[in-house]
Amino acid sequence: MPVTSADIELAGRLADAAGTAIRPYFRAEHGLEQKGDDSPVTAADKAAEAAMRRLIVAERPMDGIVGEEEGVREGTSGRQWVLDPIDGTRAFISGRPIFGTLIALLEDGWPVLGVIDQPILNERWAGVTGRPTLFNGKPASTRACRSLDKALLATTSPALFSDDQLHAFEHLDAKVMSTVLGGDCYNYACLASGHLDIVVEAGLKLYDFAALVPVVEGAGGRMCDWNGDPLHGGSHGEVIAAGDSARIDDILEALACRGH
Amino acid sequence: MPVTSADIELAGRLADAAGTAIRPYFRAEHGLEQKGDDSPVTAADKAAEAAMRRLIVAERPMDGIVGEEEGVREGTSGRQWVLDPIDGTRAFISGRPIFGTLIALLEDGWPVLGVIDQPILNERWAGVTGRPTLFNGKPASTRACRSLDKALLATTSPALFSDDQLHAFEHLDAKVMSTVLGGDCYNYACLASGHLDIVVEAGLKLYDFAALVPVVEGAGGRMCDWNGDPLHGGSHGEVIAAGDSARIDDILEALACRGH
Repeated sequence: MPVTSADIELAGRLADAAGTAIRPYFRAEHGLEQKGDDSPVTAADKAAEAAMRRLIVAERPMDGIVGEEEGVREGTSGRQWVLDPIDGTRAFISGRPIFGTLIALLEDGWPVLGVIDQPILNERWAGVTGRPTLFNGKPASTRACRSLDKALLATTSPALFSDDQLHAFEHLDAKVMSTVLGGDCYNYACLASGHLDIVVEAGLKLYDFAALVPVVEGAGGRMCDWNGDPLHGGSHGEVIAAGDSARIDDILEALACRGH
Repeated sequence: MPVTSADIELAGRLADAAGTAIRPYFRAEHGLEQKGDDSPVTAADKAAEAAMRRLIVAERPMDGIVGEEEGVREGTSGRQWVLDPIDGTRAFISGRPIFGTLIALLEDGWPVLGVIDQPILNERWAGVTGRPTLFNGKPASTRACRSLDKALLATTSPALFSDDQLHAFEHLDAKVMSTVLGGDCYNYACLASGHLDIVVEAGLKLYDFAALVPVVEGAGGRMCDWNGDPLHGGSHGEVIAAGDSARIDDILEALACRGH
């Protein structure tokens, strides 16, 4: 069943609900009353996921749910909502307004709809397979990148790589123009809007990457794993995003030194 | 001569002028007409520094100026304005609204006034020696940190360290609760507002760190170099900021493995 406008509208309401739950906790370490032993970020995470789950259960009782906080709710429709209420926990607790809420819809395990929402800056990227990605309602597009030595590369932290992965990443890092650290899901959003050329990460969970795929690909980019295979519910968390799909082979070649 | 309200007001107008110059270039890679061969960030950097210099030359003709783009203008007053129009160039070109404009006033080489301005989010931290730091006009304060293992540490990129410095940093990194990468001057601003506990960096120029000192110290934190000495015009760019000054000795001890 293809993505409908009702699906897109629901995804938007999920992001709205998550934002409403999250905003009171941002930069609130000093003043906010805590529920039990939760830190503000954990409380925000739980409140946002609970708000999104309530909406999904009410409106799509047959759909499955995978969430970072509350785990898996089995469904019967072949559809699955994949939720990461706060991607970029360290950015959130550091006071940086570049964390994001990630919402994906999977059909038979394949991401077909994705939202990256930044609730403090009111920035929302929404992608649907086969349609142009929208940034706050206007089309977003990746930019051309003629060669790796002109590429701006981003990754959240080299500490998230295994030794083999780090070795491969450093090989790529040496070939690009410049590398910027930090950023989490916001890097993929900025790539979709044409400000970054490549994002390479590893160790991501399904809820970390599912929403990114429709956003990046609907903006003209391409995502795959470190073997060049498309990302789906069974992927192992090695992720590549390229704004210019013509650079994918160069990226794979640079990363291929891993384990050889 | 102590900092006057006219100095503070001028620093605010410098930040306003820089922001006006910078905003059209942010996320404008696609559409903006370029002057000559300059990239948008270089054009923004130059335009912002030129705007600030014009104001200083007109209103404080006896004061010296040190700027990232145009270098040193000698003065005769013993006062020096130190300007970094865009600190966080990579953040800027990546589309992240967490770069900053840095403005410092030095008296006999000592930073006595500092501004960290984020022109996209309209966030401004202003510090003056001996006065409370203001964030958008309201007092900002660092938070207590009882021990390193409860500390949130930030640094922009480990690639900015020498081998010795990296070894020392990793020693500190292993002792803290969590480390977040990226961030540039925004880390010091977030520390001044109580969201981060420690920032450690190296290789900074005077225009990268001078403005940070009054902001952090006016918020209750402390800054020093990696030997524990206060930062001034002759410091060599190894920088520590601690939100809780009681942690400075622990940080210095953790970094002291360098070169031993």
